[in-house]
Amino acid sequence: MPYKIGIILGSTRTHSNSEGILKYFTSSIIPTPNHSDTSSESELRSNTQSQFESESNSGSEVKPEIEFEIIHLNQSPGHPLPLLLDEVIPQAHPKDHVLLPQSYSDPSIQKWSETVEGWDGVLILTPQYNWGYPAPLKNALDHLYHEWTGKPFALITLGGHGGSKVHDQLLTVLEGGLKMRSIDKSRHVQIILPREFITSSERVKGDEEWLCAYKEQLEGLVDALKLAVEEKKR
Amino acid sequence: MPYKIGIILGSTRTHSNSEGILKYFTSSIIPTPNHSDTSSESELRSNTQSQFESESNSGSEVKPEIEFEIIHLNQSPGHPLPLLLDEVIPQAHPKDHVLLPQSYSDPSIQKWSETVEGWDGVLILTPQYNWGYPAPLKNALDHLYHEWTGKPFALITLGGHGGSKVHDQLLTVLEGGLKMRSIDKSRHVQIILPREFITSSERVKGDEEWLCAYKEQLEGLVDALKLAVEEKKR
Repeated sequence: MPYKIGIILGSTRTHSNSEGILKYFTSSIIPTPNHSDTSSESELRSNTQSQFESESNSGSEVKPEIEFEIIHLNQSPGHPLPLLLDEVIPQAHPKDHVLLPQSYSDPSIQKWSETVEGWDGVLILTPQYNWGYPAPLKNALDHLYHEWTGKPFALITLGGHGGSKVHDQLLTVLEGGLKMRSIDKSRHVQIILPREFITSSERVKGDEEWLCAYKEQLEGLVDALKLAVEEKKR
Repeated sequence: MPYKIGIILGSTRTHSNSEGILKYFTSSIIPTPNHSDTSSESELRSNTQSQFESESNSGSEVKPEIEFEIIHLNQSPGHPLPLLLDEVIPQAHPKDHVLLPQSYSDPSIQKWSETVEGWDGVLILTPQYNWGYPAPLKNALDHLYHEWTGKPFALITLGGHGGSKVHDQLLTVLEGGLKMRSIDKSRHVQIILPREFITSSERVKGDEEWLCAYKEQLEGLVDALKLAVEEKKR
């Protein structure tokens, strides 16, 4: 069984910088065995999964592959999720992971619960909106509780200053609120967006030269997330 | 013209503790001239407005009355708002306050823009979810920009520890992100919810004796918000 990592995009905009960064990420950072740079277009559809072999794979030791599942909060199956209307908070749902998904009244939340239950780790790729996290991302987080607890997570934040505020606030929510496990904190990546990608209609395409400056950091983030997942599995 | 204050409830739950706190607030803190404690039930409908004369009204000086407009993010007219899908960020919309509302493509956001444009100040009454702000509240904030800037705001947060995390994160978003004006920071109110109101299905009704401990603080918050609005009007 390969490890499964969920990638959640915080932006629900049709044309977003997050999409461009995701494109760079899937084409340059997590190459698949049968995959060239030019074939990366097909990976950007909703819920596309890509696989690659562990880079630390060496000699006779065979480490599990990693599979990525991309969640677009506006268009992946089961999304967008409804507002939080339930009388009972997710924390009060049964901890039993078999009973958990069916304990929600709304079918889309049941599906979201099953999806997250199937992940070994989470990567959140999000812009900063008004010095905070986007609403659809928080909505997706707040619908569940036991599905998140203990799960390793990594952050890629985008903003004029690298999204330092959304980075800080998400750390508080994920570690403090949801009891998830941060990867080595120095490995979260803050991408400084050039001004024109924020205020104009221009969006990151994913092939810009300035993105290469983040290659090493992004590879380090993936390694750290793999390590955190492996540590949890032990 | 009376001053107009918008009260935004951060919870979208049908039976929420925020409703109970709002009930206490409208019945005990902002009494109307023709208003007794027992008639407060009728004030809890969506978008109910209540008026009261400025408490600092004295002698020949007649100060403006204050009118409150309550926004339930799940059921007030124009709500719930859609997800953030627009290509252009709200900050890039025209600053001209006449052109502003019609510059949004979605009618519900146009209406939201008009509503907030009509306010002199904002009071946010919100629970803390997973050490952060609720998604519907952030969604309502992120759809607008120029409508918020410069506007005085006050916070009432609820939580097992008074919602100190949602208080901190909202201060960052409102002051830093949206350039709003906090009232005297010592006047925001953090209400410590007894545990049973968080984990069980029991909800604050608004007539609990322990709420009286917050009366003075809540009156101080209203005074501070009135003062901030008056200062801005000068």
